[in-house]
Amino acid sequence: MNWLPDHSAGVPIYKQIAEHYESLIVKGELLPGSRLLTERNLAIQLGVNRSTIKSAYNELKASGLITSIKGSGTIVSEYSWEIDPPKLINWNRFKGVAFNPTAVINRRIREVSRTPGMIDFANGGISKSLYPVEELQRLLQNIELTANLEYSDVKGDLEFRKTLSDHLKKQYEVSADTQEILVTSGAQQAFTLITQCLLNPGDSVAVECPSYAYSLKCFAVAGVKMVRLSVDEEGMRPEEIIELYKRHRIRMVLTHPTFQNPTGTTLSLHRRKKLLEICSELKIPIVEINFMNPLVHNDCDPPSPSLLALDANKELVIHIESLSDTVAPGMRIGWVIGSKSIIERLSEVKHEIDLGTSAISQHIASQYISSSWANNVRRYTAELTKRKQLMNRTLTEELSNEFDWSTPGGGGTIWGKLRKTCNELELLESCIKEGVMVVPGSIYGADKGYVRLSYAHCHENEIVEGIMRFKRALSV
Amino acid sequence: MNWLPDHSAGVPIYKQIAEHYESLIVKGELLPGSRLLTERNLAIQLGVNRSTIKSAYNELKASGLITSIKGSGTIVSEYSWEIDPPKLINWNRFKGVAFNPTAVINRRIREVSRTPGMIDFANGGISKSLYPVEELQRLLQNIELTANLEYSDVKGDLEFRKTLSDHLKKQYEVSADTQEILVTSGAQQAFTLITQCLLNPGDSVAVECPSYAYSLKCFAVAGVKMVRLSVDEEGMRPEEIIELYKRHRIRMVLTHPTFQNPTGTTLSLHRRKKLLEICSELKIPIVEINFMNPLVHNDCDPPSPSLLALDANKELVIHIESLSDTVAPGMRIGWVIGSKSIIERLSEVKHEIDLGTSAISQHIASQYISSSWANNVRRYTAELTKRKQLMNRTLTEELSNEFDWSTPGGGGTIWGKLRKTCNELELLESCIKEGVMVVPGSIYGADKGYVRLSYAHCHENEIVEGIMRFKRALSV
Repeated sequence: MNWLPDHSAGVPIYKQIAEHYESLIVKGELLPGSRLLTERNLAIQLGVNRSTIKSAYNELKASGLITSIKGSGTIVSEYSWEIDPPKLINWNRFKGVAFNPTAVINRRIREVSRTPGMIDFANGGISKSLYPVEELQRLLQNIELTANLEYSDVKGDLEFRKTLSDHLKKQYEVSADTQEILVTSGAQQAFTLITQCLLNPGDSVAVECPSYAYSLKCFAVAGVKMVRLSVDEEGMRPEEIIELYKRHRIRMVLTHPTFQNPTGTTLSLHRRKKLLEICSELKIPIVEINFMNPLVHNDCDPPSPSLLALDANKELVIHIESLSDTVAPGMRIGWVIGSKSIIERLSEVKHEIDLGTSAISQHIASQYISSSWANNVRRYTAELTKRKQLMNRTLTEELSNEFDWSTPGGGGTIWGKLRKTCNELELLESCIKEGVMVVPGSIYGADKGYVRLSYAHCHENEIVEGIMRFKRALSV
Repeated sequence: MNWLPDHSAGVPIYKQIAEHYESLIVKGELLPGSRLLTERNLAIQLGVNRSTIKSAYNELKASGLITSIKGSGTIVSEYSWEIDPPKLINWNRFKGVAFNPTAVINRRIREVSRTPGMIDFANGGISKSLYPVEELQRLLQNIELTANLEYSDVKGDLEFRKTLSDHLKKQYEVSADTQEILVTSGAQQAFTLITQCLLNPGDSVAVECPSYAYSLKCFAVAGVKMVRLSVDEEGMRPEEIIELYKRHRIRMVLTHPTFQNPTGTTLSLHRRKKLLEICSELKIPIVEINFMNPLVHNDCDPPSPSLLALDANKELVIHIESLSDTVAPGMRIGWVIGSKSIIERLSEVKHEIDLGTSAISQHIASQYISSSWANNVRRYTAELTKRKQLMNRTLTEELSNEFDWSTPGGGGTIWGKLRKTCNELELLESCIKEGVMVVPGSIYGADKGYVRLSYAHCHENEIVEGIMRFKRALSV
């Protein structure tokens, strides 16, 4: 450790030490289970009194980041999900990293995923070869620009919201008028707006565990506490919300009910109804992620209606969609559907933040949705179905003794658990050495030993070879 | 007043009353100088004890929103600029309105500006007829889409940042490499990122008064206190910063040194250097707004180099530009230039907020800047010069006895002061009746009696008629 406290800083030394360790843990540079130096040894190393180290460790224990275990000394706590972020919003401090200690893994995946020859089972997004380039190119050539050069309405271009309203009716039998829709710069901005408008630092939110990593980051940065809803093969168990509400006064439930990322599970109709009933009783709004819904595989039944469709008056549900998973992420187009009053509130903050979304992108999206979307989604899911079947078959032939997985009814990823325990970072390094990238489960807040394998982004003819490489990595 | 406190709410009645008045003042429904009811009369009207009203008024006095003036009773304070926002960030509360009480005026302008027949001297943006529609349309037809459908780098598409780097060198002799540039969804997002990364609630920022309204809103919503830098015909007086720093520990200076919005003034070279010297001494970063810089009128000299150009190592200056004022606002493209470390920090938060800007918009902007930008800006400023001269001539002929104004060296607006005092809302209503829209100065935090007249957005042949209508409105 090169770091030393700054005696001239005017900040108590014990605080500086506590903050230094907190930042190492938050950034993932000290992983759960890592052992800290004894108070005595750290005192010597930093040249301070032992009582100073004691105070620093006590502060870290109080916020739940470290634990003393009899006989083993002091270690970084296993789970940081239910820990209260120690301070109010502090952008400087959190520096954009999630509160669960996965930054090292994320960074490593980003570093190597573009290495030539690497088979990418990590990226869950559409393959470049499947982008609807021709259709979009054709639309661009016929675009009428004049109106699209002005500021669009902060809720989104009215024409686009009308297109979305028709689209929702046709695709999902959901009625939403233009006042109930807010266009955002991708789903990520929707999470930001919801967090900033509807939650305060210190509030608790119930989140499926494991869950979509980027939405978790928004909460973490805003000082919002996340409490876990466990997930089985039918999705979350809504009854858990009652207990969580009693213990944590949760203010919101975040759920991804259809082809959940990362587990691929789909919430059953029975549980959807139960969830709405419980949240209605407790008056807790539900944020529904609906990215994957259109990607129903050809060999599976369509999922139950969305929570939004079941909550026809939009009293409880705030619904988030995006074109990133069905068209292309570079468009940065998403939208939120909810009651007029929620949409009004989110729009005001959107106005503060960026005065509205690119009118040109919205125009292209609008034209695309009304002309080519449905056909392309069909073509794309047919491709995903084929790839899933191939990956599933290869896993069955090659890895059924080492890996338990379930095949999803839609989307582009398979979620499974290794029978043997392993160290995630070591697994990742073995995979990299063999030339295949996968995502270890802790990125999503999962217990040890889980892995997400994506068949959406790689080339179809890489699937068999990729699984072979994964198998070799596991045998190390 | 229809409002009554809610005795069953569990919130003390005096607090409810204080919050009710706060919200009326913040929304601009009670303007500065308005008289409040006496404690006695309000107590009767609300059916509560007089001591409850006393407590509520004391709370409002403590936060500086109202003042007791001997002999005149209790009035809404004249200036809210230097008032500490009473609470930490509270999106619910501020609901997206600026802390200076101009919302009524803003709303009224928005309501009537699209009335048929209205001559719009309020909108400072480019006329629809001057958008470079043909050039952009041509670019769209030749766009190569494949790469633009992926997520772009969160700092911005690398090709676009290279284009910007060349552009800055050529146009302003500013060296900025791609790591020193962050592409944003318009300048507004740049303000948001700077506020959220570099400031904490309760911090003070020195801002030119009057100043650009939307940047002020970002600060207000984030609980940042704004302190005034006065502006004369050479711009702000940098020496004032020393005193403000002593009194308020200001953490940042926001300045718009060239063709300032709304005053049109340009900071002299001498003052630019002084500003850098003082801020360097006090270690206060400077945020420089540079929207209007390219719009130098044909009959005027080019302005001094930007603060960024004078601070070649980017030690102090964070520089914001946008295409909204030179190309079209609907593109939602802006950028920030600063030191690598600042850009890195802002990018991390940008990643949290929206995962990056629309890659398609960036691609179009990049093509446009390297092919058509310079020519179009020349054509556009020639048009602005003609219009300014016409408006200036008409004002001289028609209003030189009632109005004192200065003609700017660039940009699209004229700023002036009425010789007769007037009530801004009444003036606005008279203008509306005559069929012309102007912006009263209080929107920008100016003293009473100022008006901004824009010649950028209306049709050229409406200028003479618009000034005649303004003259009639003044004579009421």
